[in-house]
Amino acid sequence: MSTDLRNRLFEQLDSLVLIDPHTHIDAQSPASTNLSEILGYHYYTELAHSAGLPQQQIEAPEITPREKVGLLLNNLEPIQNTIQYSWLIEMCQQFFGFEGDIIDGSNWEQVYDAAQAKMDEPDWAQQVLAQSGLEAVFLTNDFDDALEGFDTSVYIPCLRTDDLVFHLAKDSVRERLEVCTNISIENLGSLTQCLEHLFTHFTRENAKACAISLPPWFVPREVNYGEAETALEQIQSHGEQAAPEHKESMACWVFWKLAELCDEFRLPFDLMIGVNRSVYPGGVYQGMDLYDSRVSLIQYADLFNAFPAVKFPVSVLASVTNQELASYSWIFPNVITNGHWWYSNTPTFIEHDTAARLEAVPQTKQIGYYSDMYKLEFALPKFAMYKRILAKVLAERYVIDRSWSEERAVEFGKRILRGNVETIFNV
Amino acid sequence: MSTDLRNRLFEQLDSLVLIDPHTHIDAQSPASTNLSEILGYHYYTELAHSAGLPQQQIEAPEITPREKVGLLLNNLEPIQNTIQYSWLIEMCQQFFGFEGDIIDGSNWEQVYDAAQAKMDEPDWAQQVLAQSGLEAVFLTNDFDDALEGFDTSVYIPCLRTDDLVFHLAKDSVRERLEVCTNISIENLGSLTQCLEHLFTHFTRENAKACAISLPPWFVPREVNYGEAETALEQIQSHGEQAAPEHKESMACWVFWKLAELCDEFRLPFDLMIGVNRSVYPGGVYQGMDLYDSRVSLIQYADLFNAFPAVKFPVSVLASVTNQELASYSWIFPNVITNGHWWYSNTPTFIEHDTAARLEAVPQTKQIGYYSDMYKLEFALPKFAMYKRILAKVLAERYVIDRSWSEERAVEFGKRILRGNVETIFNV
Amino acid sequence: MSTDLRNRLFEQLDSLVLIDPHTHIDAQSPASTNLSEILGYHYYTELAHSAGLPQQQIEAPEITPREKVGLLLNNLEPIQNTIQYSWLIEMCQQFFGFEGDIIDGSNWEQVYDAAQAKMDEPDWAQQVLAQSGLEAVFLTNDFDDALEGFDTSVYIPCLRTDDLVFHLAKDSVRERLEVCTNISIENLGSLTQCLEHLFTHFTRENAKACAISLPPWFVPREVNYGEAETALEQIQSHGEQAAPEHKESMACWVFWKLAELCDEFRLPFDLMIGVNRSVYPGGVYQGMDLYDSRVSLIQYADLFNAFPAVKFPVSVLASVTNQELASYSWIFPNVITNGHWWYSNTPTFIEHDTAARLEAVPQTKQIGYYSDMYKLEFALPKFAMYKRILAKVLAERYVIDRSWSEERAVEFGKRILRGNVETIFNV
Repeated sequence: MSTDLRNRLFEQLDSLVLIDPHTHIDAQSPASTNLSEILGYHYYTELAHSAGLPQQQIEAPEITPREKVGLLLNNLEPIQNTIQYSWLIEMCQQFFGFEGDIIDGSNWEQVYDAAQAKMDEPDWAQQVLAQSGLEAVFLTNDFDDALEGFDTSVYIPCLRTDDLVFHLAKDSVRERLEVCTNISIENLGSLTQCLEHLFTHFTRENAKACAISLPPWFVPREVNYGEAETALEQIQSHGEQAAPEHKESMACWVFWKLAELCDEFRLPFDLMIGVNRSVYPGGVYQGMDLYDSRVSLIQYADLFNAFPAVKFPVSVLASVTNQELASYSWIFPNVITNGHWWYSNTPTFIEHDTAARLEAVPQTKQIGYYSDMYKLEFALPKFAMYKRILAKVLAERYVIDRSWSEERAVEFGKRILRGNVETIFNV
Repeated sequence: MSTDLRNRLFEQLDSLVLIDPHTHIDAQSPASTNLSEILGYHYYTELAHSAGLPQQQIEAPEITPREKVGLLLNNLEPIQNTIQYSWLIEMCQQFFGFEGDIIDGSNWEQVYDAAQAKMDEPDWAQQVLAQSGLEAVFLTNDFDDALEGFDTSVYIPCLRTDDLVFHLAKDSVRERLEVCTNISIENLGSLTQCLEHLFTHFTRENAKACAISLPPWFVPREVNYGEAETALEQIQSHGEQAAPEHKESMACWVFWKLAELCDEFRLPFDLMIGVNRSVYPGGVYQGMDLYDSRVSLIQYADLFNAFPAVKFPVSVLASVTNQELASYSWIFPNVITNGHWWYSNTPTFIEHDTAARLEAVPQTKQIGYYSDMYKLEFALPKFAMYKRILAKVLAERYVIDRSWSEERAVEFGKRILRGNVETIFNV
Repeated sequence: MSTDLRNRLFEQLDSLVLIDPHTHIDAQSPASTNLSEILGYHYYTELAHSAGLPQQQIEAPEITPREKVGLLLNNLEPIQNTIQYSWLIEMCQQFFGFEGDIIDGSNWEQVYDAAQAKMDEPDWAQQVLAQSGLEAVFLTNDFDDALEGFDTSVYIPCLRTDDLVFHLAKDSVRERLEVCTNISIENLGSLTQCLEHLFTHFTRENAKACAISLPPWFVPREVNYGEAETALEQIQSHGEQAAPEHKESMACWVFWKLAELCDEFRLPFDLMIGVNRSVYPGGVYQGMDLYDSRVSLIQYADLFNAFPAVKFPVSVLASVTNQELASYSWIFPNVITNGHWWYSNTPTFIEHDTAARLEAVPQTKQIGYYSDMYKLEFALPKFAMYKRILAKVLAERYVIDRSWSEERAVEFGKRILRGNVETIFNV
């Protein structure tokens, strides 16, 4: 009974065409050109490495795409239990006509070739978008991205600001900033002009969000002029060798300035809270980051209070922070729950975190899901996973536990999946 | 099958007449006199505000009760998903004959008038108590409450001590204390006499508990005489401008003294751990508080060890602290699990936290639920929510998973719901 | 349907013969000689004490085994709800022919006598192993255990190192170390020789793991020679009166040296993270320890990075740390999830934690369960509890949610239960 109910709700939710509000898609090359770009996703390389495959083999400089796929698919048996592996299988079933449950040494070449035939079709990206029920995806653009050569109503720009906040002490970052804005950074005034230039450029090109990922220790604060001026001088003189307190001052100053600009330019500011970078430096590319779950949104209270007109869609890395996220969204008008990020993007955590949000946060302030994908093929299985869980939670906790009609539950689900993306990001 | 089972268990649990061990009821005006007192509950005002309704409109000084209800019910669409909204609907269905699922601009006036007709009946409070299956409720009394003019066997006094512990530096608090005890605070000796006077007064008037809410940073400790004497001098000289360390010393000294008096007067000491006040000062009345979930019961180990004869019913604000609560109650004879507080009083957290407690804490040391209500009408839907979840957990985790008989599961549930309130608070 | 499915999976999982990878069994006396050794397990004494039975009665010096069992079973009514009580009942049903659900004053003597008759049989331990489906159990041996007089292929030694790391400042510990190695501790060199001697001795006697429990504040680090030499001099001169920083330096140095030896001798190093000792000193034997759940695996990042060839099976005390455990195992090749420890060894936490691990950690890197038992009779009910939960999670989250075949789910479960114990510990 409950399974039938879940399936009925899922079918309804699955019929919706979506906008994916956070991805790492390269608009110049949105879909994969061979299966190696699928298997090269860090989830597969890092899990295969965790299960014993040496980093040197996975990232061998001379390895061909076909060899890399063969290497990985011959070594994924240890991760066939994972949800990430199920994404691969569902994707191959849906896009490439694969009919089994396991891809291994016995059949990977057929899958490789079937995928290649599809990927070689000239409209492959459009096919993937259509079959996935996607009408647009948000990008994650470097601040010096020209944002040219693609349709910004389908590939919607988003200004990623990690480099500006956390790596401005690097000479290369300041140089990139000077080059793309054509402004020389002399002092806080010209630095402000640089940042304004970025916002002008991005919003002119249809950017709909500013975004940043944040380490657990970061506590945003307003830095006074003198402290910030000194910090800027120090990083200009000493680069990355500047004292940590100056780098922290600079990070806070830039972060606060970005919030001011989000206010001025009416851009939501996506905060992705909680990641420690390079915890495992011996890992594969993009497979080195972890976290310290001892973080609290109270660290952001001053920010939320200072910018009541800025919408902050917030993602948290650890499920133990999810209750705070739900509570802060319940109280602060400008805090919005946003998706299920990375280490919390697995079914058990999604289910628990979704259930807690659905019942306590205004339905207008919840963004259900984003794929975080690097290649378009991943939206289908990732959103399918989320929609199945959403259907389960709506079935069990609304239709059964609270006697909602199925129609009402579906309407709620649709708003979480799509409606709020439109209203919150103004797309 | 499981749904039928849950319903059978719920019916049994629901037949019980209860004592509500923690509320904010005003014994002089326990039930609502108009629907505005229902809609004015901070859950509705803060959620409506979070969804976009300005605080200035909600708290407009000239607004009439009818206008306030109209304002809110015309703006609650964004929170119709929340469990708090379901309390409102269930209450209106049960008490006022409302038959729909949604109250909005189209029908709020009928509900308003139907409620008014009921609330105008002279025995409305008694009707609510009877229909809710409530035989008595605990109050939360200011320390200078005269406790006169009501039946203390139905409205059971409880000494709330937040002001004494955390606000004694305010001149107004010390003056209120001097006035109600008729003792001049000269030194620690006379301050002790004041506190003893309160306990004598409250216990004479049938008080059954002392209670306090505590911020996450608080670590109770025994303060020596010299440190406390200095702290008292400082707050008497400088009031709220006294140095933070003196205020912290004073808070610890008063808190410890209260525990000593709970021991002497055999009063349980309700600890409600984890709230940060005024995190969002721009919020509505009672809608400004949040929390930092990085708190541990290890902060209370010295207290629990120092007062083995004092019962400490403990509530935690964040679900991530619930496992510690279950574990500390499993080990310390004087630690008791108490209800599901505030941001953890939503179904997903109640279900998880209840399940964890039921299976690991002695059944004599668990107080299932309190309503925390300000008006009597809320007990019915809040307890109904809890009883449904309790029935679900007992059905799934005891009758199904552990092959308990339904009778045994119901007996266990009844003890959690009522029996323990009697034995722990001696009512 | 789902219940039938769960039962089918359970039957398959239950047919497996297991190796228990962590117990406190005394190989010289592995099974109980009377029911008092069952009821004396700290879970019963501490829960009975928590529910009101005085420690002085439970631990009265003159009490006979029969009296102790009578005392406890006459006073366990308050804990009949707990999962620990269910272990007792299932054990008595399976081993002693008990047919009821409750043991109390009315029937405890029959159970006592029935148990005694069984326990008096000369091959009782072998019977328990056979009936429990156990082929071998890991021990927890003091570093100066001679490891003689038992079959180390059934009772597999494990070097427990808490004393070496956290209590080397005690003269008695250093003396024991000198006696069992016949080496005088003069300096870091001779201390290293002592530790090498232990590893040689243990591995020669078939030890398959080194193990330690760790407090939440501990942050392992490599200590330089000078700091360690000074620390050793200080603890040799002042014993337990040495300054805390010297004791911390010594702890870190010894811990790091143990990791080096695990590397050299190819022994997995079991880390059991998060316990605070003697939080409730008034408790019964082994019923005084609790925890501060504010701990993070980031504290162990340097260790995991420094010893890539050492396998670290990690247990965490609090369920809120489980997501970090799953994530760190997903990224670090040498981090392995290990069982459900102590305060997290109750069904609600096991279910949540198991589900989170199954779907995100390579299936080769998960050790499902260990009993942590002191007497052999506990393996049966504890493993049965775990296998029922594992069957539930596999049924609901794999067969139903992800359409796995039952065969595939069972194969996965068997690897978690047994296969990984063999491969990870090389038994």
